[in-house]
Amino acid sequence: MAQGALLAVGDELLAGRVLNTTSYEAARLLSSYGYRVVEMVNVGDDEEAIVSHLRRLLTRTDFLLISGGLGPTEDDLTTEAAARALDLPLHLHQGILSRIRENERLQGLPENPLRHKMAYLPQGAEPLSRDLSVAGYFLRYQGKLLFFLPGIPEQFQRLLVDRVLPILLETWPPEEEVFTRTLRFFDLREAEINQAVREGGFSGVEVGFYPVFPEVQVVLTARARTEEEARERVQAVAELLRRRFPEHLFGEDDEELPAALGKILREQGATLALAESCTGGLASSLVTRIPGSSDYFLGGAVTYANEIKEEVLGVPHRFLRIFGAVSREVACTMAHGVRRRFKATYGLSVTGIAGPGGGSPEKPVGTVWMGLSTPEETVARSFLFSGTRHEIQTLAAYTLLDWLRRYLLTGNLFPRYRFGRTP
Amino acid sequence: MAQGALLAVGDELLAGRVLNTTSYEAARLLSSYGYRVVEMVNVGDDEEAIVSHLRRLLTRTDFLLISGGLGPTEDDLTTEAAARALDLPLHLHQGILSRIRENERLQGLPENPLRHKMAYLPQGAEPLSRDLSVAGYFLRYQGKLLFFLPGIPEQFQRLLVDRVLPILLETWPPEEEVFTRTLRFFDLREAEINQAVREGGFSGVEVGFYPVFPEVQVVLTARARTEEEARERVQAVAELLRRRFPEHLFGEDDEELPAALGKILREQGATLALAESCTGGLASSLVTRIPGSSDYFLGGAVTYANEIKEEVLGVPHRFLRIFGAVSREVACTMAHGVRRRFKATYGLSVTGIAGPGGGSPEKPVGTVWMGLSTPEETVARSFLFSGTRHEIQTLAAYTLLDWLRRYLLTGNLFPRYRFGRTP
Repeated sequence: MAQGALLAVGDELLAGRVLNTTSYEAARLLSSYGYRVVEMVNVGDDEEAIVSHLRRLLTRTDFLLISGGLGPTEDDLTTEAAARALDLPLHLHQGILSRIRENERLQGLPENPLRHKMAYLPQGAEPLSRDLSVAGYFLRYQGKLLFFLPGIPEQFQRLLVDRVLPILLETWPPEEEVFTRTLRFFDLREAEINQAVREGGFSGVEVGFYPVFPEVQVVLTARARTEEEARERVQAVAELLRRRFPEHLFGEDDEELPAALGKILREQGATLALAESCTGGLASSLVTRIPGSSDYFLGGAVTYANEIKEEVLGVPHRFLRIFGAVSREVACTMAHGVRRRFKATYGLSVTGIAGPGGGSPEKPVGTVWMGLSTPEETVARSFLFSGTRHEIQTLAAYTLLDWLRRYLLTGNLFPRYRFGRTP
Repeated sequence: MAQGALLAVGDELLAGRVLNTTSYEAARLLSSYGYRVVEMVNVGDDEEAIVSHLRRLLTRTDFLLISGGLGPTEDDLTTEAAARALDLPLHLHQGILSRIRENERLQGLPENPLRHKMAYLPQGAEPLSRDLSVAGYFLRYQGKLLFFLPGIPEQFQRLLVDRVLPILLETWPPEEEVFTRTLRFFDLREAEINQAVREGGFSGVEVGFYPVFPEVQVVLTARARTEEEARERVQAVAELLRRRFPEHLFGEDDEELPAALGKILREQGATLALAESCTGGLASSLVTRIPGSSDYFLGGAVTYANEIKEEVLGVPHRFLRIFGAVSREVACTMAHGVRRRFKATYGLSVTGIAGPGGGSPEKPVGTVWMGLSTPEETVARSFLFSGTRHEIQTLAAYTLLDWLRRYLLTGNLFPRYRFGRTP
């Protein structure tokens, strides 16, 4: 199988200002297809260093992924270095130049020669982006493949999956078929999932555990002569985990938790409204990131100030005075109020103390009350989350949406939660 | 100042099973003391590869940190590779051997020659751990320093801080003080900032450009004999950029754009309420991530469905029917409605088409209307953003908050925006 190396360019990497996650993601993807990565290097914005690494790596690999240093600023030197290392002249790419000029015109920017240098590529290079909207090109050179990619993680990742991988697969088809599936869990620890897999006693499946806050992703990979065989091996493990953790396994591959909730709401023809205090709009924002969420999401109220809780959601003033904003009574009336006010099937509410200030001995930072209002009844429950302000907000927002998801799946209004134990 | 390199050993790094955070942490620490890291390499458990990297890196650095491959298993090859690369014999270290045997006895383990190989170090090496409880040693070799460290992050980190750094500081006391400042810009491209810096003709300041969507961060670094001198050089460039882009430079170092807006609101004793449609709560969530935001943020309405715009914000039904939800009229009444309803000093609104569906020839995906309501007047303006659904939502939410920030700074209700040009 073909061997490759990853070269990442940028002073920010060597100064420890930026953690290089793009090389890691690339190594993970390439390995999953059976390609062997023999080296990963970070170098600075230093033309000599880039040249010498390119020359060295070309002698021992079949393909190279070079990332970073393709931008418009003077410390972007990768293309010049590549031209020197490979002894190729730079040629002007008219399509890229037109695209840059068009952008300048559309945005009312002055023509800038720094930007225009991005239109010069080593002879024989072809742009990777089909609509020329992002930097990056590839080059066949003495039977080897060189891919030059932007250092910006989203752009790198998109070109890697859409362009680099298909070209590699065409040039060096995998000798084995690989089947991979990602299972996504909420409110469950790696160790518990790991133990379940081990007890199953499967062989021929690699199992990787990746905590991606606030969820855990489990990547199952099998290699076999045929795709069917690889798929069957993966499915056996997935089936076990689905049976073992039917409520915690919320989705597969790209399915986000809010999308899993949305799918159930759409199937039931139900609608949702949210009343948020301590999460400040985060739960609504997670729901509305999902395309088509307007089918089931009516809206939300971010009732940060107490007066707004009274005015918009009809929370009685005496509840706030007697029980406080973070209480069962206020969570219930918020959930019920937003459901009625927005005429939704379900209302969810969350009110708590995200910190760093505002805690007390009775209600420490991380105390959160949530309410769920259905057409039949309205209930509330409390949690105690730990972490930074943003972690508490994130855990609370995900748990809120997960609570409704699990209720809709099982009919149980009070599923047990491992995280955020009841205070 | 002394130059170093980081070499991390382990198949798990090349397979993308483990993200190398130890090298990143080390680079960050070393840089903060003025040491220059010239290269970071990950290689596999491959003796040949380790030997050749050690030889190569020794020719161009003063010190090396090598991590991983010091354990008891057969794929731990770093010490053998070091002995070969430096042409030094391996010597038995009696203290380490006793410690290993004692552990075996205490834990009831059989004597294991694999474990005992950890007691052999290259001639002249000294253990780093004072109580010999973890692997790792250092070696002076031809005026250079080599540190061999365990790959386990906690052990690596502890030895780095307790032993490696003090030895480096004793060997090469910092000649220079380093001063670093990050400037953060919104709605400005790297190339524009770069050109301004170049026209300033500064020397002795490194300038790095990092697009961190949706902003651009510029990192200024100076090294000088005294901290004052380094600081002054950085301040000169910062001052130029502040004068040149007074509205676009919104913060320094850790200051987020929503915090910059919050600071001004707090200073003025003013309050804010938000009405969001296409951003679905994202703008509120950005505001409320900031600790203490309850001082100035009263709340928001996420009015995803049209009926909610009418019911909660008082948007007239005929506006929605005649002009559509994405219109100047609706943006104005949303901003005005939320300001009045929430009794805030300022009301902001955003309504648009985030996609991927919902676009039309007159109002393509990315069309966004925003409203700003002050105690004196209510205005609206439109933008056309491009990107994925999430990118459009993010640009819209940041632009909304930035608009109020710039208005509060300058009194200008219609600052010019480069991104999201008016359709």
